[in-house]
Amino acid sequence: MQFPQGFQAAAIAAGIKPSGKTDLSCVVSDTDCSWAFAGTRSTTAAACVTRNREVYAVGGPVRALVVNAGNANAATGKRGAHDNADLADALGSVLNVAQDAVLTASTGIIGHLLPMDRVLSGVEHLPEELSPEADPFAAAIMTTDLVPKTASVTLSTGARIVGTAKGSGMIHPDMATMFAFAFTDAQVDQAALRAAFGAIVNRTFNAVTVDGDTSTNDMALVLANGQAGVVDSAEFLAALEGVMRDLARQIAADGEGATKLLTVRVTGAATEAEALAAARTCCVSPLLKSALHGNDPNWGRVIMAVGRSGAGVNIETMTVAVQGTPVFAGRPLPYDAALVSASMKAEEVIFEVNLGVGDAVGEAWGCDLSAEYVSINAEYTT
Amino acid sequence: MQFPQGFQAAAIAAGIKPSGKTDLSCVVSDTDCSWAFAGTRSTTAAACVTRNREVYAVGGPVRALVVNAGNANAATGKRGAHDNADLADALGSVLNVAQDAVLTASTGIIGHLLPMDRVLSGVEHLPEELSPEADPFAAAIMTTDLVPKTASVTLSTGARIVGTAKGSGMIHPDMATMFAFAFTDAQVDQAALRAAFGAIVNRTFNAVTVDGDTSTNDMALVLANGQAGVVDSAEFLAALEGVMRDLARQIAADGEGATKLLTVRVTGAATEAEALAAARTCCVSPLLKSALHGNDPNWGRVIMAVGRSGAGVNIETMTVAVQGTPVFAGRPLPYDAALVSASMKAEEVIFEVNLGVGDAVGEAWGCDLSAEYVSINAEYTT
Repeated sequence: MQFPQGFQAAAIAAGIKPSGKTDLSCVVSDTDCSWAFAGTRSTTAAACVTRNREVYAVGGPVRALVVNAGNANAATGKRGAHDNADLADALGSVLNVAQDAVLTASTGIIGHLLPMDRVLSGVEHLPEELSPEADPFAAAIMTTDLVPKTASVTLSTGARIVGTAKGSGMIHPDMATMFAFAFTDAQVDQAALRAAFGAIVNRTFNAVTVDGDTSTNDMALVLANGQAGVVDSAEFLAALEGVMRDLARQIAADGEGATKLLTVRVTGAATEAEALAAARTCCVSPLLKSALHGNDPNWGRVIMAVGRSGAGVNIETMTVAVQGTPVFAGRPLPYDAALVSASMKAEEVIFEVNLGVGDAVGEAWGCDLSAEYVSINAEYTT
Repeated sequence: MQFPQGFQAAAIAAGIKPSGKTDLSCVVSDTDCSWAFAGTRSTTAAACVTRNREVYAVGGPVRALVVNAGNANAATGKRGAHDNADLADALGSVLNVAQDAVLTASTGIIGHLLPMDRVLSGVEHLPEELSPEADPFAAAIMTTDLVPKTASVTLSTGARIVGTAKGSGMIHPDMATMFAFAFTDAQVDQAALRAAFGAIVNRTFNAVTVDGDTSTNDMALVLANGQAGVVDSAEFLAALEGVMRDLARQIAADGEGATKLLTVRVTGAATEAEALAAARTCCVSPLLKSALHGNDPNWGRVIMAVGRSGAGVNIETMTVAVQGTPVFAGRPLPYDAALVSASMKAEEVIFEVNLGVGDAVGEAWGCDLSAEYVSINAEYTT
């Protein structure tokens, strides 16, 4: 996949990942970008999130993003904060742009200092690898992901949006997921973009969960360099939401140990926030995720998860359907359990829940819980 | 273990559990009891929780508790509420006490009507099985528990408190766990007991988690029949908290698929609520639980879990220790990973976390996450 006009990326193996795979990358725009950012709400946020938030508050344009995978540079104290600033500074120097026009993103194990000698000598080599290809960048930001995640859309004016993201554990974003990056050559007003971004993140990345664990390094970012000219704002925002939703679903489907995508659609809620809370609590429930893994239409676990989400329900008018089969409508309904179980042997399993109290809707995505998840996280330090 | 004076229990196999094990039981006091109760905050609470809450609000004394295991009678609509009332009524009739002096508790699968023919004919046989032995009762309330859970203490006056509890999945109590019952022959003022009970539940049952999933049927209950006379109130409440804490730890250690107990002690918090939130978030983290299973001293996952708990931290003065070994103090500390990993091969693993902001403390308990948890919940409808 090609980046939008004016964007290029580079990716190299700097020796951060023990596997020797590409782990240091950057995306550069040849002109200034307006941008929006959402970072984790974690109170132990990593150095990259803290610094990007500071740069964001200043509000100036940006030109580049540098990403390392294999080391989160989180819980690394003042030394970690210095290293992060040095990384931005180094990329700014080789690209000849201001340090404040460079954003950073680190992902990987928490609590280890970055190997700065290897990182800084790697940065020196990034400019020679720059190309308009997005795929090497999407691969270099991966950690336990099995597949790279990209999505794109072309607007009516010909402007494009290209998004990339990574998962795949410690995924229960509380602001954004670690990481989702969108790049566009559309000309977008920065204030309008920032005003709309929070709600879009809430309906997309904040609606995906793999394990309920919120990362210290989560971030979602959109960079717009304007090279394809003015676009209709409503069309752009809808298209951006589509790209982010696509990436969010890809993250859920590639959750650690996942064998299928879980989609929970909630209707009949009092508010969108309650609909999203109910849907998200279903997606994070280890019991529902385990039942999904075993193709068990155990809808009682949906009732349980909705009940603990705090969303208002009317249990007498509440309904639940599994893969289109109604199983509860104020009381248990008779259904063919073998047939519904067979229908759950699919790449995507959809639970539909009507809370019976209002008109608001929400959707969330997750995955099944497998023994493989435990094995990934018990046997490897990630 | 014998019940306190004046309490007797009975347990039979009524045919609710497919295994044929005992599944219908009751505890009866031969005189009126003052009592306190805490039920799940789930908005899809089961019929037994809803009815006990109503009886509790009336505030009269109680005489008996009837429990069935194997069927939660939750999400069963109006018919389920009727069945639950009929169960209380039936036990009241055979014991010759008022229906409002009988509490109910159901545990097991959600979304199935109780087999009332078998339940009601079972109730007829309960009186002939009554005895002062607590163990048959503790066994009859089990579902996926591997071991029965009891605890007792004798006060200075000779009065006793005997507690029983069950786990072992859908354990993330948000008021109480499903179930914890304490019985005492101490004479206790009901208003004082009820006033103190919420805080005790918060520090004990609300501090235990197996999977983050809050049950529809959680309840904690204490019945005091006064037959051993007046006791010092402070001594009694401290003893009650000890019994409930003991049961809470037993529930965590016997969590579905668990191979070890996880204890997280938080100090240096701004408030007790924040200390408990930080400790509890560590105990529910699938990533920390998986690392624990693999004896991996991956303390970065503690930093992550505390960060997402919302508790205030000062990352520069925060400290973390694993089994007594300091691993973080504002920055990563050098430690012998092989040695710490070896020390984690224990029945109980203790993480100590100082948030570095205040004086409040809190403790929570959980267990490791194993492939067995997934297997239990993917392969069996529970």
